[in-house]
Amino acid sequence: MTDAGPRCLVLGAGGFIGTNLCLALRARGVAVTGFGRGPAPPVLADIAWVSGKLEAGGLDAVIEGHAHVFDLIGAGLPNSSNDNPAQIVADGVPAKVRLLEACRRQRVRRFVFASSGGTVYGVTGAVPVREDAPTEPISAYGIGKLVVEKYLALYRHLYGFDSRTLRIANAYGPHQDARRGQGLVAALLGRLLEGEPVEIWGSGSVVRDYIHIDDVVSAMLACLDHDGPGRVFNVGSGIGRSVAEVLDDAARITGCTPRLLHREGRGADVPVNILDSGRLRRETGWSPGVAWEDGLRRTAAWIAGRTG
Amino acid sequence: MTDAGPRCLVLGAGGFIGTNLCLALRARGVAVTGFGRGPAPPVLADIAWVSGKLEAGGLDAVIEGHAHVFDLIGAGLPNSSNDNPAQIVADGVPAKVRLLEACRRQRVRRFVFASSGGTVYGVTGAVPVREDAPTEPISAYGIGKLVVEKYLALYRHLYGFDSRTLRIANAYGPHQDARRGQGLVAALLGRLLEGEPVEIWGSGSVVRDYIHIDDVVSAMLACLDHDGPGRVFNVGSGIGRSVAEVLDDAARITGCTPRLLHREGRGADVPVNILDSGRLRRETGWSPGVAWEDGLRRTAAWIAGRTG
Repeated sequence: MTDAGPRCLVLGAGGFIGTNLCLALRARGVAVTGFGRGPAPPVLADIAWVSGKLEAGGLDAVIEGHAHVFDLIGAGLPNSSNDNPAQIVADGVPAKVRLLEACRRQRVRRFVFASSGGTVYGVTGAVPVREDAPTEPISAYGIGKLVVEKYLALYRHLYGFDSRTLRIANAYGPHQDARRGQGLVAALLGRLLEGEPVEIWGSGSVVRDYIHIDDVVSAMLACLDHDGPGRVFNVGSGIGRSVAEVLDDAARITGCTPRLLHREGRGADVPVNILDSGRLRRETGWSPGVAWEDGLRRTAAWIAGRTG
Repeated sequence: MTDAGPRCLVLGAGGFIGTNLCLALRARGVAVTGFGRGPAPPVLADIAWVSGKLEAGGLDAVIEGHAHVFDLIGAGLPNSSNDNPAQIVADGVPAKVRLLEACRRQRVRRFVFASSGGTVYGVTGAVPVREDAPTEPISAYGIGKLVVEKYLALYRHLYGFDSRTLRIANAYGPHQDARRGQGLVAALLGRLLEGEPVEIWGSGSVVRDYIHIDDVVSAMLACLDHDGPGRVFNVGSGIGRSVAEVLDDAARITGCTPRLLHREGRGADVPVNILDSGRLRRETGWSPGVAWEDGLRRTAAWIAGRTG
């Protein structure tokens, strides 16, 4: 792809995954437009940028002229989504369906949707979990993601609308905002490096599949060229790590001794989530390239550089 | 159960399934309240009745004092739902989640949800289809039903909210309104008996699982006492019949010769839908008791008595 190639629109470009994806697209010479609630983050100051809200409508004008659309717009956090479970279907989901409608009108050639491998499955039987496992979310957030997946399948059936869904595991890495409580790795490293106490929810036994953002971004880019049969793909490392293990590793790498604050476990936390990404590997040749300790070190260095 | 037992609320009581369910509950001496958009149908003139819209709110006052709630409120028809796929998530689904919220507040002991065995699965692999088959609806209507199922599972996890979901096949029988285009059997019998031409969509090869309304009602009643592990149950005959077969049988039984109008096939029609109701049989002892030809004759007699 070159700058003369198809233009990409990244929705939710100011967030963690969006920022990294925009940087990667720009580095590859792809013409990219970012769309976010606020102004462009400084690191994306030189790309085309549109500020706005999905819910506000007027999407056709934003989408027009873009062949590829990446939808990275979240809808709050899994846990807080359960404080008001009706809200995500009242606000977030209808806005997403209107987005699909606008993309269809604007003849978008491929739509890549960031779903959530950590929430759509719910409490799983065997791990690592495959894409054909039952989907029983235990958060409204997870239901919201699943509904968009179902609409993408419906739009494929009705209109031939072309899309790929990535069910992404727990992504971590640079540009994740520790202060927004977005990810365990960022939160732990941030608190350790700032000498603040670390909150542990429940027993610390909750197991997640942590995947470096560079590997998530390479999976998203692989979706643009994919022409295999799959439409929904897990994106994870396939390795489970408990909160306690992540804390140990983060403490060792930073050389900081954690002070712990134990909090009650949360209802939206499934005990174990590990993804089988075999389908993505087979159909695109993708594989995760960033080793855990290396990724953790690079993330710590980025946070230290930012906070220091 | 006696009139002194738990009080039942039937939402969507003016519709086909709702009317039959109210009649069955009344016949068993169960105290029942009907809730519908319009006034009570004449046949339900002697039960407690509340007219209103789910979307209008104020549900707590309606639900208060009812131990059991049956939700039979539809959201349009599968085919027309695809004319505006966003509408069902914008209107119908949020109203349903607010309903669940109100039922939880009012400490409803059991919620029975009428889902759609004909639309939640989508284009199935093997038939008869079991409850653990993939769910890939090809209509917004089917997605809407599936989302409510997911919310019921979420509410069970978060709050212990007790519910049963019935994925009902193509129900037919008395009180189905042929003039609203609600069901093939009623539409065919109605047109044959009135000497009107019969519309056939597509080749007439579409296969459905037809179940008599009495068997649907007995499944709903079985849900009240069920204490097995299942929460989602298919309700069907397990027998597939093509449109052409149903037409032949209806013509034979009524002695009418059909005049056919062939229409183009519809995008929301899956080619085959046959349900495996083994789970419901095993866990409740339910079995369909009305034979096809007998059911068809009784339905024809009801329609003839109504139109004649």
